Amino acid sequence: MTELAAVKAALKTQAVETPSWAYGNSGTRFKVFTQAGVPRTPQEKLADAAQVHAFTGVAPTVALHIPWDKVDDYGALAKYAEDHGVKLGAINSNTFQDDDYKLGSICHPDAAVRRKALDHLMECVDIMDATGSRDLKLWFADGTNYPGQDDLRGRQDRLAEGLAEVYERLGDGQRMLLEYKFFEPAFYSTDVPDWGTAYAHCLKLGDKAQVVVDTGHHAPGTNIEFIVTTLLREGKLGGFDFNSRFYADDDLMVGAADPFQLFRIMYEVIRGGGFTSDIAFMLDQCHNIEAKIPAIIRSVMNVQEATAKALLVDRDALGAAQRDGDVLEANAVLMDAYNTDVRPLLAEVRQELGLDADPMGAYRRSGWQERIVAERVGGTQAGWGA
Amino acid sequence: MTELAAVKAALKTQAVETPSWAYGNSGTRFKVFTQAGVPRTPQEKLADAAQVHAFTGVAPTVALHIPWDKVDDYGALAKYAEDHGVKLGAINSNTFQDDDYKLGSICHPDAAVRRKALDHLMECVDIMDATGSRDLKLWFADGTNYPGQDDLRGRQDRLAEGLAEVYERLGDGQRMLLEYKFFEPAFYSTDVPDWGTAYAHCLKLGDKAQVVVDTGHHAPGTNIEFIVTTLLREGKLGGFDFNSRFYADDDLMVGAADPFQLFRIMYEVIRGGGFTSDIAFMLDQCHNIEAKIPAIIRSVMNVQEATAKALLVDRDALGAAQRDGDVLEANAVLMDAYNTDVRPLLAEVRQELGLDADPMGAYRRSGWQERIVAERVGGTQAGWGA
Amino acid sequence: MTELAAVKAALKTQAVETPSWAYGNSGTRFKVFTQAGVPRTPQEKLADAAQVHAFTGVAPTVALHIPWDKVDDYGALAKYAEDHGVKLGAINSNTFQDDDYKLGSICHPDAAVRRKALDHLMECVDIMDATGSRDLKLWFADGTNYPGQDDLRGRQDRLAEGLAEVYERLGDGQRMLLEYKFFEPAFYSTDVPDWGTAYAHCLKLGDKAQVVVDTGHHAPGTNIEFIVTTLLREGKLGGFDFNSRFYADDDLMVGAADPFQLFRIMYEVIRGGGFTSDIAFMLDQCHNIEAKIPAIIRSVMNVQEATAKALLVDRDALGAAQRDGDVLEANAVLMDAYNTDVRPLLAEVRQELGLDADPMGAYRRSGWQERIVAERVGGTQAGWGA
Amino acid sequence: MTELAAVKAALKTQAVETPSWAYGNSGTRFKVFTQAGVPRTPQEKLADAAQVHAFTGVAPTVALHIPWDKVDDYGALAKYAEDHGVKLGAINSNTFQDDDYKLGSICHPDAAVRRKALDHLMECVDIMDATGSRDLKLWFADGTNYPGQDDLRGRQDRLAEGLAEVYERLGDGQRMLLEYKFFEPAFYSTDVPDWGTAYAHCLKLGDKAQVVVDTGHHAPGTNIEFIVTTLLREGKLGGFDFNSRFYADDDLMVGAADPFQLFRIMYEVIRGGGFTSDIAFMLDQCHNIEAKIPAIIRSVMNVQEATAKALLVDRDALGAAQRDGDVLEANAVLMDAYNTDVRPLLAEVRQELGLDADPMGAYRRSGWQERIVAERVGGTQAGWGA
Repeated sequence: MTELAAVKAALKTQAVETPSWAYGNSGTRFKVFTQAGVPRTPQEKLADAAQVHAFTGVAPTVALHIPWDKVDDYGALAKYAEDHGVKLGAINSNTFQDDDYKLGSICHPDAAVRRKALDHLMECVDIMDATGSRDLKLWFADGTNYPGQDDLRGRQDRLAEGLAEVYERLGDGQRMLLEYKFFEPAFYSTDVPDWGTAYAHCLKLGDKAQVVVDTGHHAPGTNIEFIVTTLLREGKLGGFDFNSRFYADDDLMVGAADPFQLFRIMYEVIRGGGFTSDIAFMLDQCHNIEAKIPAIIRSVMNVQEATAKALLVDRDALGAAQRDGDVLEANAVLMDAYNTDVRPLLAEVRQELGLDADPMGAYRRSGWQERIVAERVGGTQAGWGA
Repeated sequence: MTELAAVKAALKTQAVETPSWAYGNSGTRFKVFTQAGVPRTPQEKLADAAQVHAFTGVAPTVALHIPWDKVDDYGALAKYAEDHGVKLGAINSNTFQDDDYKLGSICHPDAAVRRKALDHLMECVDIMDATGSRDLKLWFADGTNYPGQDDLRGRQDRLAEGLAEVYERLGDGQRMLLEYKFFEPAFYSTDVPDWGTAYAHCLKLGDKAQVVVDTGHHAPGTNIEFIVTTLLREGKLGGFDFNSRFYADDDLMVGAADPFQLFRIMYEVIRGGGFTSDIAFMLDQCHNIEAKIPAIIRSVMNVQEATAKALLVDRDALGAAQRDGDVLEANAVLMDAYNTDVRPLLAEVRQELGLDADPMGAYRRSGWQERIVAERVGGTQAGWGA
Repeated sequence: MTELAAVKAALKTQAVETPSWAYGNSGTRFKVFTQAGVPRTPQEKLADAAQVHAFTGVAPTVALHIPWDKVDDYGALAKYAEDHGVKLGAINSNTFQDDDYKLGSICHPDAAVRRKALDHLMECVDIMDATGSRDLKLWFADGTNYPGQDDLRGRQDRLAEGLAEVYERLGDGQRMLLEYKFFEPAFYSTDVPDWGTAYAHCLKLGDKAQVVVDTGHHAPGTNIEFIVTTLLREGKLGGFDFNSRFYADDDLMVGAADPFQLFRIMYEVIRGGGFTSDIAFMLDQCHNIEAKIPAIIRSVMNVQEATAKALLVDRDALGAAQRDGDVLEANAVLMDAYNTDVRPLLAEVRQELGLDADPMGAYRRSGWQERIVAERVGGTQAGWGA
Repeated sequence: MTELAAVKAALKTQAVETPSWAYGNSGTRFKVFTQAGVPRTPQEKLADAAQVHAFTGVAPTVALHIPWDKVDDYGALAKYAEDHGVKLGAINSNTFQDDDYKLGSICHPDAAVRRKALDHLMECVDIMDATGSRDLKLWFADGTNYPGQDDLRGRQDRLAEGLAEVYERLGDGQRMLLEYKFFEPAFYSTDVPDWGTAYAHCLKLGDKAQVVVDTGHHAPGTNIEFIVTTLLREGKLGGFDFNSRFYADDDLMVGAADPFQLFRIMYEVIRGGGFTSDIAFMLDQCHNIEAKIPAIIRSVMNVQEATAKALLVDRDALGAAQRDGDVLEANAVLMDAYNTDVRPLLAEVRQELGLDADPMGAYRRSGWQERIVAERVGGTQAGWGA
């Protein structure tokens, strides 16, 4: 197989999981803008996600968020997904949208609130049993707003205790992915603020506990690809929540703010042996002002383009320049791949997969958008609150 | 008058304006937590604000937000305020909470939306005429989320045009205070992102246009007191929106995150001749998880403490050390004031004003909180959406 | 002329000024690493700069730094440059490398130090008269390290006074370019910390005073292209000091850290009518660990590539999408240009100019590096201190 | 013992280690300013450090930096120190000031450079054997400036290998303290950029490997006290390098930039059981523009004041408020301690220790400064390069 053929083959194996909530409404604290055609039910979200997969070919699974995607019969939901050409993916818990969680969930000073949160997490694992999901994605909004508000160390103890209980509940083939976040919604301390904290907890829990990197959850200037490298080296990278940012956790389309950074991240994934199904490549974005399905298609394409460029890096030449200490040449080898226009290559890959070379145009021409705008009238649009 | 007497006299003239919306519910994009006893009407907000003034003695005015505080009869509202011991302050406009404003307000690419936003601003000046308010505070959520989304320069042209129309509408004794903000809710570009932009626009508009400094609206590491110094030197500082932050625009209680910074800001205000009624000292905060009225009392007290320390700086000694280039001594003179415990001094000031020396305790003992929790049942609690 | 021909024509007019000091040694506070073949004299720096121009065709001028490039006869130096195919460009002043400047230069509390600094600036204008340079580039290291150390407002007064004196000295056709910098070497306050401060001073001085944007001198997250847009709109953009950064003022090769940002900046330059000789496009970089001449060639090429992409933006399509409020399409139009591989186009441009299509390779093959390594033995290598 | 007596007793046990290099010259990349009276030899640095201890009573040890403090006879140096009333403390290695280290030291791509760096580290342990020092403080300037320059993962492998070799060399009662740093002098990647990386390496090495927190080595906005809490909880906090910063690694006097942060850090130290001799409390500062010995005395006093306030926190009241979820009361308990003026208390502590209540004044009156200015004439002043 030629090198280019190998790159194409790798690109055909790519899988990006899209999140059910990205199909619904989202916004900032100032305003959630509504859009015509937005899904009202988990089923409608899956139907939209199926469109993304149909046009890109590399978005075969859909992450659920509980309770936003609660249904009576998860087996039926899984069947619904498969009938539409996709599968259910990770289960995302929610321990932040109840008045009880004002001061935290599993780190809350009150044992009763901690119990409530843990019961919810256990329910999520029950749902995983029903859906066949592998991954439980845990993001905790826990933290404090004011110095002194709570005991930072006590909160870590409660966190460890809660995580251990959930870990014990995991079945064979199930994992917990622990997400860290620099800040927001807590503004003084966050209980899992960085990869080091997530890593330390996962290390004690065991092999089923892995760290998930949300690309928007870091301090300004953080070298995210270094974290990817380190977690892969430690065997503790479980997956990604992809999005992009200029400032805080902006949740813009992945690759929109800094496409070079996304390329560097994907290069370290490949270099570290992480381009496998053991790593969950997920989107976690908010399409506050742009059309949602096209935005998600664009995001998937952005991940593809970064991956294609990363696969094109001439690693032999790079290694030689690095060993020689030739700073400019090593940088040039990397940039040579980055500066390549990979869109024609990806068009070929799509055509070889039997897809339209232009997913954005194909979606636009498909009439799906007009159909959902016409059909999805009445009811309550899905959003972060539903 | 002794020096300490002069400090006390100055502290007795202090006036901090509290914002009507801080008495209502607020939150993050993840959740707005409700609190018992929260006002349902503009009148109830004023009643709460009156408590803050009653216990601190230095919070005599209340800023309104339109349309959240819309009433049929503003004259009656002003009378209601005065009957409760406070007055109406600045009018705050809102051009961000309507679906039409998804891509901006007075910078929107569509002239119809710009017209709608401008009509709202004109209405705000009408309200100022009715309430006798001096200041129109303008904060625009305008900006873009993605590179290319709109023409950055075209948006500046529209901004200038819109501001000019509002400026023309201002009556004698009325001002517009233009607020800048680093980011949020827009995540790629913001149309008034920094003091320089606000200053450049205000300079062209004329003397009635002044810049307002929100202490939470800067890039990480920004030296805010330098901006205060510069705007005062240019005669373009109109006022403050006080709050504090660890990360982004956290809107925590002023002085909670970095009390030393607040002291430095107040020192530059005093040094620059800004401790006068020409500068509007306003709070703009979100008490997402803490009790609202006590949080506002605490905030007012924090401003008082920073002011007292700033007034205590031995400016003769400071100037001498500065002229001598004695870095350590100059710093020591400033720190000497900062390290002083001014709480006993402020207790005296309060007692001399006929107030309880301990506003937090006095409020707690007053029974007001229990009363509003008991009485304010039913209805819709005030918040950012109402 | 076809559109592509217009793009090529524009690219052929491009002019990037390289700085004499980038050919010498530089480093961090921890260590200045030496390199073989580094120039020992201003003449040797010019000879190296001539190589950069010879291989790129778009680096026709060289900025000088006084006193590092002090010579007895500036006319002879200009002649030397022209004999080598380049011209002398901006004169850069230095008011930070003398023990007297420990607490500042033209903002120093001591009038004698201010006088010394001003005399140096006057001497720089004398040199401009001799070299025929148009631009005096002013960067002040002035600031303070500790709160209270000096009077922030007094320093602004001294700054204004000093700038006014230099402004008066400028001849016809001469300009002063005032640079701002967020921080370093001062760590508490900097006397010209942001574009707003530089703008406010330049506005008062007059038309010959313009702001220069060093791309590494901003707070984390700052939208630099917005500043470019605004300064162009105000008629106050005088030029650029190009370099790139991940953290602080890293002074890496321009385009190395965030090529997408450089593209966005160049797009705003073009959109704002700034792609003319009125704007000085200068490099200001430190090649601490990489070979210097090749690094500068690479930097010039990076500016070319960003410019080519910016010129390729389909502005009609972009404007249409912006007017329609089509967020995704407008972003796509911009990204379409960015994602284009412009290296073949630039190879053509070079060949049409009679140059090698591959400047990096051509320089490597030229033997210049081996020659200077062999010849430049002994003497004192040029660096920031000489 | 009353509570206040306990606070005083604790303050009397405090020990802050001062660094030999802070007595010498330092600066930024732009300029190192010289000062009269600066030491020329390790012995003169120790003599200055002895003054700091003589006037504060809590600075009994002095950290050495190799090779800056290289001597022929370390036993004699230790004796010299003890004769002057202080002891030798941690040994700091230097693997950044040799031309060979341009691309790194123990992470360098070339095995010969790695060997050289490791030999130096081994020599440092030899010196520890001679001086009786407990701690080897390791800070590596290793990293890269450009994407692609070297293999991020390969560098981690080399780092792990190098650290393991040094770890094996440690004797009983000896420790290695691994320091992390966000950036500088490397500007793209740093090989130990955050506490997580240092922690992961130390965990694998064993109990003698501990993390050291330099308070200036974090991304903007980082909650440092959270890291302190976590490392103490994990049993992996080895010590501090105290200093303060507004922007990057400014190395200002500890407590000068954000005294509230220093207080919060000291509170977490005490709450986490870290106020013991197992934690090395060291200064690591640069007194670029201020007089050095007084700056170090002030720094020691700033640590004392923060410690005193942290010891004064009413932990019973704090715990009760935290358990009640009373956000404002819990914050108020903490702030009550912070707002206390502890200078009178510390004056008493000093007097009870037989010291002058006013260390700054006492030093000024001692005549030491005049003496060293007069006596230390000629020779080469100590600095980062010597």
